[in-house]
Amino acid sequence: MEMKAEIKNRLAALRQKMEMHQLSAFIVPSTDPHSGEYVPEHWETRKWISGFTGSAGTAVITLDDAGLWTDSRYFIQAEEQLEGTGIRLFKDRLPETPSITEWLGSILKKGDKIGIDGWVNSHQEAHALQNGLAENGLILETMTEDIFDTLWEDRPNLPETPVFILDETHTGASCTEKIARIQEAIAKNGASAIILSALDEIAWTLNLRGSDVHCNPVFISYLLISKEGHTLYIMEEKITDEVRAYLESQQVKIKTYSRLAENLFTFKDNHEGVLQISPLANEALYDLSSRYAETIIAPSPVALMKAVKNETEQDGFRKAMERDGVALVKFLRWLEEAVPAGNESEVSIDKKLYDFRAEQADFRGISFDTIAGYKEHAAIVHYEATPETDIPLKSEGLLLLDSGAQYLDGTTDITRTIALGPLTEEEKTDYTLVLKGHLQLQNAHFPAGTCGTQLDVLARLAMWKCGINYMHGTGHGIGHFLCVHEGPHQIRMNHMPTPLEPGMIVTDEPGIYKAGRHGIRIENTLLIVPAQETEFGKFYKFEALTLCPIDKKAIVTEMLTDEELAWLNEYHQMVYARLCPWLNAEEKEWLKEATNPIKR
Amino acid sequence: MEMKAEIKNRLAALRQKMEMHQLSAFIVPSTDPHSGEYVPEHWETRKWISGFTGSAGTAVITLDDAGLWTDSRYFIQAEEQLEGTGIRLFKDRLPETPSITEWLGSILKKGDKIGIDGWVNSHQEAHALQNGLAENGLILETMTEDIFDTLWEDRPNLPETPVFILDETHTGASCTEKIARIQEAIAKNGASAIILSALDEIAWTLNLRGSDVHCNPVFISYLLISKEGHTLYIMEEKITDEVRAYLESQQVKIKTYSRLAENLFTFKDNHEGVLQISPLANEALYDLSSRYAETIIAPSPVALMKAVKNETEQDGFRKAMERDGVALVKFLRWLEEAVPAGNESEVSIDKKLYDFRAEQADFRGISFDTIAGYKEHAAIVHYEATPETDIPLKSEGLLLLDSGAQYLDGTTDITRTIALGPLTEEEKTDYTLVLKGHLQLQNAHFPAGTCGTQLDVLARLAMWKCGINYMHGTGHGIGHFLCVHEGPHQIRMNHMPTPLEPGMIVTDEPGIYKAGRHGIRIENTLLIVPAQETEFGKFYKFEALTLCPIDKKAIVTEMLTDEELAWLNEYHQMVYARLCPWLNAEEKEWLKEATNPIKR
Repeated sequence: MEMKAEIKNRLAALRQKMEMHQLSAFIVPSTDPHSGEYVPEHWETRKWISGFTGSAGTAVITLDDAGLWTDSRYFIQAEEQLEGTGIRLFKDRLPETPSITEWLGSILKKGDKIGIDGWVNSHQEAHALQNGLAENGLILETMTEDIFDTLWEDRPNLPETPVFILDETHTGASCTEKIARIQEAIAKNGASAIILSALDEIAWTLNLRGSDVHCNPVFISYLLISKEGHTLYIMEEKITDEVRAYLESQQVKIKTYSRLAENLFTFKDNHEGVLQISPLANEALYDLSSRYAETIIAPSPVALMKAVKNETEQDGFRKAMERDGVALVKFLRWLEEAVPAGNESEVSIDKKLYDFRAEQADFRGISFDTIAGYKEHAAIVHYEATPETDIPLKSEGLLLLDSGAQYLDGTTDITRTIALGPLTEEEKTDYTLVLKGHLQLQNAHFPAGTCGTQLDVLARLAMWKCGINYMHGTGHGIGHFLCVHEGPHQIRMNHMPTPLEPGMIVTDEPGIYKAGRHGIRIENTLLIVPAQETEFGKFYKFEALTLCPIDKKAIVTEMLTDEELAWLNEYHQMVYARLCPWLNAEEKEWLKEATNPIKR
Repeated sequence: MEMKAEIKNRLAALRQKMEMHQLSAFIVPSTDPHSGEYVPEHWETRKWISGFTGSAGTAVITLDDAGLWTDSRYFIQAEEQLEGTGIRLFKDRLPETPSITEWLGSILKKGDKIGIDGWVNSHQEAHALQNGLAENGLILETMTEDIFDTLWEDRPNLPETPVFILDETHTGASCTEKIARIQEAIAKNGASAIILSALDEIAWTLNLRGSDVHCNPVFISYLLISKEGHTLYIMEEKITDEVRAYLESQQVKIKTYSRLAENLFTFKDNHEGVLQISPLANEALYDLSSRYAETIIAPSPVALMKAVKNETEQDGFRKAMERDGVALVKFLRWLEEAVPAGNESEVSIDKKLYDFRAEQADFRGISFDTIAGYKEHAAIVHYEATPETDIPLKSEGLLLLDSGAQYLDGTTDITRTIALGPLTEEEKTDYTLVLKGHLQLQNAHFPAGTCGTQLDVLARLAMWKCGINYMHGTGHGIGHFLCVHEGPHQIRMNHMPTPLEPGMIVTDEPGIYKAGRHGIRIENTLLIVPAQETEFGKFYKFEALTLCPIDKKAIVTEMLTDEELAWLNEYHQMVYARLCPWLNAEEKEWLKEATNPIKR
C-alpha cells in the first residue's frame, strides 16, 4: 500500500499545480514529444502519476476525481494497480464507457479549462481533443512548459548514450543527398524549411543511429532543415568528436535539445519563407511554429522516402536475413531436442534465441520484445511471457514465436508457429488456413497504384470461408536498421491509401487466435519488386526476404491447392539454397529435412 | 453545313443573353436537375448548344470563344461534329489538356463572372467549380432561372406519360412504412424534413414507376417529406385518378412540378425544424433551401435503404432472373444456328434478343442499351452497335453481349462472351482468366463490415499474374425494377467505403480488353446473403441470381483449379435445375448440353 499512498501524494501535488494554472482537469497520455511506439522513461509521466504500468493508457485528473482509460489487454492489470489510488478504471472501446471528453463534460461546468502538455500530444491528437472538449463546452489549454518537471523529483534523465554513424556502405545514400531530396519535396508545398521530430526520420536523414529507445536504434532530437542551414537539436553529451566532424562535413550544425523552443521565437529573423510541420509533430512545436513562423501543416515527405529502400539497403536486408535465418535454424534445431529433454519454458527459449542471434555479425539487439506464446497463451495477441506468466514447454501443441533483430544492414521480423508434438485436428486445420493465406499474399502480383487494403483479403479468404478472422493488420513496413513498425504503407482491412511501390518492405502475417485454445501466426518479411511491364502498365510482386523453414508438421496437405504446395516447396528450396553456405553438416542435414518438398 | 450555321446562331443568341447578365462565360454540362445517368431530351441543352451528341461532355461558351470537354470515347465523333461551329475540342483527361477552370483563368480577367444553370449542376459539382474558378480569380454566378427556355424555340417538352403503381406484392413494403423509416433516419441528423430529387429514390419511396427516362422506369418529380406533410411535385398530367387516390391514401399531396421553387420561399412559414438536402441535389435547390430554410447537407438515407432489398424484392429478382434466363437460353440456342446460316449482325441479334425477352411475363423494356460487340468491337468498353458500325457475325472469334431487362419484379444485367467458332490461344487464355476472376469473387465469403474495395482483387488476381487488368469497376448495385446502376456500394479498385450487407445486389463483371483484337466480360448479378455466424462474428456470401450458361467452348480447363471447376459445374447444375421447368424438350436438351459438367 506504500505505492498507493505515494500515488495519492503525487495526485495532490499535481492538483495544486492545476489550481495555480486555473485548470479543472489535466490529461496525461502515454506518448512522448516524438510520437514513437516506445517511450523513454523520462516521459513515462502517465505511469508515474497513476501507478499503472501498461504500455497504453491515458490518465485524466480533475480537482476531486481521476480516471484512467485503457484497452482490454490491460483491464485486469489496471484494476489491480489502480485500486486504492482513487483513480477509476474506464474500460476503453466498450460501448458503455464514456469517452474522456464525454466524462469531463458530465462532471465539469461549461467554460472550464482542461490542461495538456503540448510537448507530449501530437498536433493531430490535440486538435481532435479540442473539438471533443468544445462539443462538451470545455476549453483546451495547451501548456508549453513541462508541468511535471518540478513535481517529479527523481525523474529519470534523458539518456546520454552516444550516437554513431551508419556508414554509406549500409545506407547507400549520403545525408547531403537525402537533405536535398527533402528540400525538393517541401518546395512543392511552397515550404523552404521543415522541422523533423520523428526520431526514425531524423536517424534516416542523417545516417546516424543511437540507443535511446528500447529496441529502436534512434536518438532523441529534432532536426531543422532550411535554406539558411540545418540544425540538429540534441543533448551535446551524445555527440562524439567523430560525429561532430561528420555532421560538420554534412553542413549540419548542432544545438542543444532544449534550445529548439527559443530558436523558434526568432525564426523569422533568421529564415525566409514557409516552415512545414507534420500533423504528427507535437502540439507545442506546432503552437510555437505557427506563432513565430509562417507555417503549413503537411505530412513529412521523409516517411515515404524512408519506406522505399534503395539497392544498398535492399542488399543489406538480404544479408541480414541470411544471418537471422542461420540463427533461427540453429535455434529450431536446438529446440527440437531441448523440449523433449524438459526444463524449457517460454522465457528460457527467448534467451536461447537471443544468444543464437547475438553470435551473428553486425547484431545490434532485438527489434521488439519477443512474443513466445505456448498453447492458449498464443491466443493473446500481444502476449509477453514474464516470470509470472511463464509456462514449461511440453512435447505437444503449438508454440507461437514472433521475434526480430536489429543488424547494421537491416531489421528483421519473423513469426513461426511450431508443432512441439501431437496436435488436434482443429490446430492443424487452422494452421493450414493461416499458411494458405500467407502463401496467397506472398505470391500475388499487382499493378502500380495498388494499396495494401486491396490485397489484404488474399491473406484472409481461406479462413473467411471457415468463419474465422483476425483483428490485426496483415502487414506493416519495416525500417532499415530502424523501427520494426513503420509507415506509410500497410496491408490491412481498413483503408490505407498509400500505394505499394518497388523497394518497400512489408510483412505478411495472417493469424488465427482462439481464446483458451491456441494462437497461430506465420510471418515473412517481403520486398516489393517489379514483375513485368505490359500494354496494361507496370506490375509488381513480392520477394520473400525472410529465410526460415515453415513447420511442415502442422500442415494438412489436402487443404493446399497444387499451386500453394508448389509455392511452399519453392520457398523451402530457396531457404535451403541461401542458408546452406553458412551451416555445418548437422545443421544442413536438419535444414534439408525441414525444407524437403512435400509430395501429395 | 446547315446544322453548323444553326449552332453559330444559337451561340450568338446565348452570348446576347450572357451580356445581358454580365457573364463572361457560361458552362453547360450534360446533367439534369435529378443527377440521373440518362437525361430526358428537354434537358439536352449541351447537345443543342454545341451539336455534339455524345452522352458525356461539357460545353463552355465565352463571349468570343467556346470549348467542349469530352473523354476519349468521343474524340473522333466530337471532332467531326464540332468542326465549323467555332467550338474547340478539349480532350479530357489527357495530361496536356487544361481543365475548364484553368482555360477560363487563362483567357478571362480577374473578377469576371461565369454563369451556370443551378438546376442542372449538383451542389457538389457547383461547389467544386466555385473553388476551381476562385483559384483562377473568377466568380461563379449560379442562376436559378433556365436561360435556355427563351433561346431554344422548339425545345422538347417534359414527358407527360403517366406514372403507375407498383403493387406491394412486388415492393414488399408500403409507401407509409418507407416514409416513416426516412423520417426516423433524418431525425438522427436533427432534420425534420427532406427533399428528395433523385428520381429512383422518389419512385422507390412512393412505390410508383414511370417511363420518363430511357431504360429507367422513373418519373420527373421532387418529393418533400416533412412533419407537416408530404408533397410530390410533378406535372399533374402524369397523375391518373387511380394514382391520385393512392397518393391521397398514403398522405402524399400533389403539386405541380414547377411550384417547388415558390414553395421554398415560404418554407419557414409552413414548416418547423431543419431541412435535409443531399450534396447530390441540384445547386438551385440547395441555394433556395439554404436561403429560405434552416438546411443541412447530408447524403440521402434512401440510397442505402433502397440498396438493401427486402425478401419480397429478393424473391422478385429470383423470378425475374428465371424468365430472363429462359429468354437468354432461347436466344443462345437460336444464335448457334443463326450465325452459321449468315445474315446476322451485331444490330440484328440485339433485336432478336429483345423479342425473346418481350415474350416473357411482366417485361417492361430493356434496362440499358445492349452492348453487342463482335471481335475487336468488344475491346471498346462502351461500344454500342449502330447501323454505321454494325458488322456481320461469322463462325469464328468472340461475341461480347452485355444486356438487361426491366421486369415488374426485378431488373437484370448480364454479360456473356460467346465463342462463335474457332478461337486463338490468346482468346481462350484471356477468357479463362476472366472466368477465374468471376468465379473467385462469386464464391467468396466475407465478414460483416467488408466493403467492395476489399474484395475487388479476387476478380483480378489471376489476370494480374499475367500482366493484364481492366480499368472499369468490378461490380455495381442494381435497383428493383429501377435503375440498372445504383449505389451506394460498389466493388472497384478505388476506395468505396459502404459495407456490403445481406439484401444488397451487386454485379460481378471482370473483363479483358485488347484493342484491335478482342473484348471479354463475364457478368452475373449476385445477392448478398448470410453465410454463418461464429465466435468471430457474422460472415456473408453471394447467391448467384443470374441464370444462364457460361460458354464452355472458350475455357482452357487446365487453367482452372479443382475448386474453380467444381464451382462452375455447380453453377451450371443450378442453372439447369431452375430453368428446366420453363423450357420445351429441344430447349432442355440444348441447356443440358450447355450445362453438362466439365470433366478433367
